[in-house]
Amino acid sequence: MIGAGQLARMTQQAAIALGIELRVLANSPDESAARVIADARLGDYQVLADLRDFAKGCDVLTFDHEHVPTEHIRALAEDGFAVRPGADALVHAQDKAVMRERLTAIGVPCPAWRRVETASDIEEFAGANGWPVVLKAIRGGYDGRGVWVCESAEDASEVLASGVPLMAEAFVPFERELAVLVARSPHGQGVSYPVVETVQRDGICVEVLAPAPGLDPEQAAVAQRIALKIAKELDVTGLLAVEMFATASGLLVNELAMRPHNSGHWTIDGARTSQFEQHLRAVLDLPLGSPSLSAPVVVMANLLGGDDPDIFSRYEHVMAHDPGIKIHFYGKEVRPGRKIGHVTAFGTDLDEVRARAQHAAVYLSEGRYT
Amino acid sequence: MIGAGQLARMTQQAAIALGIELRVLANSPDESAARVIADARLGDYQVLADLRDFAKGCDVLTFDHEHVPTEHIRALAEDGFAVRPGADALVHAQDKAVMRERLTAIGVPCPAWRRVETASDIEEFAGANGWPVVLKAIRGGYDGRGVWVCESAEDASEVLASGVPLMAEAFVPFERELAVLVARSPHGQGVSYPVVETVQRDGICVEVLAPAPGLDPEQAAVAQRIALKIAKELDVTGLLAVEMFATASGLLVNELAMRPHNSGHWTIDGARTSQFEQHLRAVLDLPLGSPSLSAPVVVMANLLGGDDPDIFSRYEHVMAHDPGIKIHFYGKEVRPGRKIGHVTAFGTDLDEVRARAQHAAVYLSEGRYT
Repeated sequence: MIGAGQLARMTQQAAIALGIELRVLANSPDESAARVIADARLGDYQVLADLRDFAKGCDVLTFDHEHVPTEHIRALAEDGFAVRPGADALVHAQDKAVMRERLTAIGVPCPAWRRVETASDIEEFAGANGWPVVLKAIRGGYDGRGVWVCESAEDASEVLASGVPLMAEAFVPFERELAVLVARSPHGQGVSYPVVETVQRDGICVEVLAPAPGLDPEQAAVAQRIALKIAKELDVTGLLAVEMFATASGLLVNELAMRPHNSGHWTIDGARTSQFEQHLRAVLDLPLGSPSLSAPVVVMANLLGGDDPDIFSRYEHVMAHDPGIKIHFYGKEVRPGRKIGHVTAFGTDLDEVRARAQHAAVYLSEGRYT
Repeated sequence: MIGAGQLARMTQQAAIALGIELRVLANSPDESAARVIADARLGDYQVLADLRDFAKGCDVLTFDHEHVPTEHIRALAEDGFAVRPGADALVHAQDKAVMRERLTAIGVPCPAWRRVETASDIEEFAGANGWPVVLKAIRGGYDGRGVWVCESAEDASEVLASGVPLMAEAFVPFERELAVLVARSPHGQGVSYPVVETVQRDGICVEVLAPAPGLDPEQAAVAQRIALKIAKELDVTGLLAVEMFATASGLLVNELAMRPHNSGHWTIDGARTSQFEQHLRAVLDLPLGSPSLSAPVVVMANLLGGDDPDIFSRYEHVMAHDPGIKIHFYGKEVRPGRKIGHVTAFGTDLDEVRARAQHAAVYLSEGRYT
């Protein structure tokens, strides 16, 4: 696995059970996954020679993030390494304009969009779709970075001035955000997890409700079919997370990720097969596991670093307060706003389960009682 | 954790989630846990200097097995290391005669027993309790090793001739075997998992049924109270597994273990808190987690090595045959009869769940269809 963040760290838990020897490429021995994996190699994922050294002896290469240059991924495949997902699939999670072109071509509903290079491109787009206009960096954004909601041409010109290649999207007045996580293996087996609702704050996912509360089963099936169709058409191998806007007139695809995803962390404790196990099974072309829930209601809440880095007493409180809550720490130094872990709660009553997850997350982050 | 077998390996999965940095003392880098843990140190657990080097910088020391010499454990505690369980508790899992003396003293029901040194000691014991007589090595037995069921004085004299320090126990015509796993922390919190039924073959646990089918709730409560009482009276910190015989006239305690135990492997997938997480919480004096089941019926079956060491095609079959089965491999070379992993199945119907677990275990071990 190229990259050694929390996704690789949690993949190690699944690899241990399956008897799979996981090697990670880390920038430093202090990275989240490098702290817990015996075979952590150091190197720079932007340097092809480092990637080639790392790849020697691996059966399959996969990713903890989508920042490996597409041309390096192609070079590794040309060397004969099995890279999953492949460069032609992964580019859709790296380049938002390529993704939009492709999804539009295969008939997947997306917000109105276009590439923009000048102020007049943006004004023209706003003329057709209205303000606000959402400007997105075509490459490299994540967790709300690289996304600017512009209320006016003035706002837009500031973003343009940064020189980052941009695209414009219509602002979608959504009812809520949904996410569908699917897996697809090289031999073509596909599996979809139940559709979940994701709750974002400042562009960062703070909460995931599984299954999405009150979702019409027909709309759930539509969402799953969209995700499985994208996986097939783009020839994805491994996991694909499809983030969607639920609007009054139907579903629109927002973003794609081709790796384990924050919207699937609930699966570690709340599904029969965790997304990390599923990703390993998929990229290794093993039969896929059951995506079914292990409780009627599962809620995951992210732990964001607060102002006080010494969280030990809060950690003890949360365990004592709720013996059923599952705590996941990523071995990262606490910094304000940084994702340092997550918690998962289960049960039968959404309000109760959600309150438990929120209490644990807010108390751990801020020492505040909810 | 001193020792680097599969128990330490599975503890790493829990340590990753809790954000606990787990260090293991391994005999070789190929050991089960050493293959998956970043901080694996090499050394001999029988050598005090190796233990002292290993212990430096650890907050708490605990064990993957009970073979560390009691006097070394005392020496580490005298050095100021927090050793959990402590020597005075652990000796009851190391020395069966000490265990029997103590359990008898605190009123816990056990089979009739005595220390034996000569043929006449054994004949005297058989005179009072009848044949067969069960001879046990006082120290060092496990998985049926160190236990001899003797039908006659002749059988017994062969065992005596080995020179191993022995005790005799009355043969118990049990109805079935039960096990209770409890955790106890230094601040005195205790938790009991549901009572399970264990099925042994040739002295090796092959199957665990959770909860124990058809167990009278009053008898279950008695079993849990016995286990919690032993944990308290022996000042156990960490996990305590109590193996019991269920007989027509009640429960008799058979063996104790003070560490994660094979009878608790079902908890990884089948309980809200795995025994490995619970052990970490207990020895670190953190609040204990919920022991409740995550499905009405959970069955664990051990994977024993068969004659064919190349199990990959069987591994694929089992995953394809039953997407809901959970597979755990220990990263060990396959040898006939060796515990190389386990599988867990869940559901609502015991016969169905048990058949699934058995199919997976027997097919993986022997390539035979059940």
